[in-house]
Amino acid sequence: MAPAKKSSHLPLPAAPNNVFEHAKQSLPDGVRKAWTNYYELPVEYTVEIHAGLLDTANDTLATRFMPHGLRRRFCVIDAAVERLYGDRIRAYFEHHQVRLATVVVEGEEENKRYFAAEKIFNGLCEFGLLRREPMFVIGGGCVLDIAGFTASMYRRGVPYVRVPTTLLAIVDASVGVKCGVDWVHPSMGGLKNRMGSFYAPICSLIDTSFMATQDRRNLLNGMGEIMKLALVRSAELFELLEQHGAAVVQRAFQGDVADRIVELSIAIMLEELGPNLWEFQLERCVDYGHTFSKIIEMRAPIMHGEAVNIDGFFCVVVAWKRGWIARDLAVRITRVMVGLGIPVWHAACDADAMWQGVQDGIEHRHGMLRMPVVKGEIGKFGFLNDVTRDEIEEAIEGAHDILSTVGWHGGEVMANGSKE
Amino acid sequence: MAPAKKSSHLPLPAAPNNVFEHAKQSLPDGVRKAWTNYYELPVEYTVEIHAGLLDTANDTLATRFMPHGLRRRFCVIDAAVERLYGDRIRAYFEHHQVRLATVVVEGEEENKRYFAAEKIFNGLCEFGLLRREPMFVIGGGCVLDIAGFTASMYRRGVPYVRVPTTLLAIVDASVGVKCGVDWVHPSMGGLKNRMGSFYAPICSLIDTSFMATQDRRNLLNGMGEIMKLALVRSAELFELLEQHGAAVVQRAFQGDVADRIVELSIAIMLEELGPNLWEFQLERCVDYGHTFSKIIEMRAPIMHGEAVNIDGFFCVVVAWKRGWIARDLAVRITRVMVGLGIPVWHAACDADAMWQGVQDGIEHRHGMLRMPVVKGEIGKFGFLNDVTRDEIEEAIEGAHDILSTVGWHGGEVMANGSKE
Repeated sequence: MAPAKKSSHLPLPAAPNNVFEHAKQSLPDGVRKAWTNYYELPVEYTVEIHAGLLDTANDTLATRFMPHGLRRRFCVIDAAVERLYGDRIRAYFEHHQVRLATVVVEGEEENKRYFAAEKIFNGLCEFGLLRREPMFVIGGGCVLDIAGFTASMYRRGVPYVRVPTTLLAIVDASVGVKCGVDWVHPSMGGLKNRMGSFYAPICSLIDTSFMATQDRRNLLNGMGEIMKLALVRSAELFELLEQHGAAVVQRAFQGDVADRIVELSIAIMLEELGPNLWEFQLERCVDYGHTFSKIIEMRAPIMHGEAVNIDGFFCVVVAWKRGWIARDLAVRITRVMVGLGIPVWHAACDADAMWQGVQDGIEHRHGMLRMPVVKGEIGKFGFLNDVTRDEIEEAIEGAHDILSTVGWHGGEVMANGSKE
Repeated sequence: MAPAKKSSHLPLPAAPNNVFEHAKQSLPDGVRKAWTNYYELPVEYTVEIHAGLLDTANDTLATRFMPHGLRRRFCVIDAAVERLYGDRIRAYFEHHQVRLATVVVEGEEENKRYFAAEKIFNGLCEFGLLRREPMFVIGGGCVLDIAGFTASMYRRGVPYVRVPTTLLAIVDASVGVKCGVDWVHPSMGGLKNRMGSFYAPICSLIDTSFMATQDRRNLLNGMGEIMKLALVRSAELFELLEQHGAAVVQRAFQGDVADRIVELSIAIMLEELGPNLWEFQLERCVDYGHTFSKIIEMRAPIMHGEAVNIDGFFCVVVAWKRGWIARDLAVRITRVMVGLGIPVWHAACDADAMWQGVQDGIEHRHGMLRMPVVKGEIGKFGFLNDVTRDEIEEAIEGAHDILSTVGWHGGEVMANGSKE
């Protein structure tokens, strides 16, 4: 517990470690009485990689964190997971004689709205979830975000367990504590992640075999976040992507190299998020790819990791134009992105949109842009606060220059806003 | 920071105080990798009693916590405060040359709904509140609860300052970290405080002169919470109410005795809430009067503190019937309640309603009732977990017995559900 900061603060008898009355002589003019309350909220969660979570021999989903005397489970299930694994999930809980209550929620960015949280909320009321009884969420990043936000609101917060089923969710949403939905303002339109909470799960249970049923586009969506981590934090991870990325996607992330990529990504994310869960530090290298992407994602029908990669590519160009990296390195990075098939550009990326990204970033990061950019070499970064509209326009030209050098022709995914 | 709990947890190099990888040999069957993240969220806020917050000589509201370079303030204002103090508030900020943006929200329990949070949320979007820029809330408990909840959701949490203007808000909502709204389920109906968050303000600024314009009923509403604190925590406070309560209400809480009652109430609340902000400890004496009241409040058109006092009176009867206090003490307490004019009974308090309160309490407090009841003498308490329907029915009879002893005739306020 935090101690009293000043000797002029006197502890209250029944809460001497937390609550302090300010001594009379320390009170400013016009203040008759004052107290300070200090508290430290302990937060602890584990991220675990399991084999075969849906195998009946594995009782984790059926028994973990179950309150004494209960044999029931409230699960939020991604509609995509329901289609592919619904029968297996029901059979699993039947086998373990655990009564299953489910709320099925559509994934995809366009469903990441308050109404989805409301649907889960009503399900929790009907189920009568106890205050210390965990809710389980099985699905992709959007559904994890929505359900985590709902868990944070129900009875002012109930425990929840994340079971991510997509590459993006495994390396991103499963690791941190950010939850939320996009907000649609009546006149301002869509505002990405504007409504949400920092709310830690009690556990994330990962099973990479779920990815065997993921399509290429969804895998590449996750690759966008992994590429981000590689660029700012890990040359090893970048080289794995450069040498094995295409094969790993081909095999739907099944196998040893895929396992290594996933584990390295999770470890890096934990290192970056762990000491800064509530983002008191606003300069965060994991914000790489998250400045322009919010705007792109709200304007174009593309996925989160795709937008992150487009933003990440654009920041590579900014870094080159600033002289922070050599043109050769910018080209090398772009070749890997294009070679993997992750989107690097979109018709929505005009100067107005990108400039809006700068302005929103300044508002979101409290008055300074704090935009992370690769600096010097892969795995190193610096922050930019002084990006101008002219610089944005030059970088857009630079982007087309680099894209033409690597022979990019519009890409297999998302060149013009179509959904494939 | 919390240390690693086991030597088999190995710190990650970039976050050695927070993130630990579990050593291979410590992993259970079927788990390939596991990490634990430990974090302690520091929470700190002050509760301050000011003189004349709206006096232009006092620049607290105009300057406190203002981000560098800004001269603007986003305020949520209770509609009742707007009617009484709106012009003065605008003149105050004009005097200080601070641009004021306001959202006016109706108080009263029936408006404590998600739609009110949505109204504030849209106002925040339009204002473009920065991530570390505080929102101010001026009003009664309902508006503080709604606005605090909204602050917790906007950009996953922005700072907010509470300026409570009613007795209830001064001694209750201004002190803790609970926020929220009632939820109306399509078939289950109203569910009190079902949606919300634990979210600390950065500061509560109290000015007791706001109470000079409060009507008697609203003052008695606050008295319900003060009576609660007296019964479980403070014979001194009870005696102040017994000897001076009526006069203090008569003078609208202006004067030295009123100041002492307010300060003592705040100090006790801080002592009780301070070390247990997130309610990890579910046995809480401040839950006195908060078991049956949730049901009464949703069924009858009465105010929060009124329902708390009805519940508190009922629990006095339960304590007497259990032999935890003497009948004489039950009568003495009831005389003080009735003498002050705080409601002690309502037509909605039938056995079904009260029994529903028990069942909801068990669900809310995770499988055990944990109902605080006065035990032995005023200021002492115990918890009950084994209340039966028969006991409820006997206590209802006992309540009428005590009420007839004190000559209660239906009371000046709220005997039959009318609004006065």
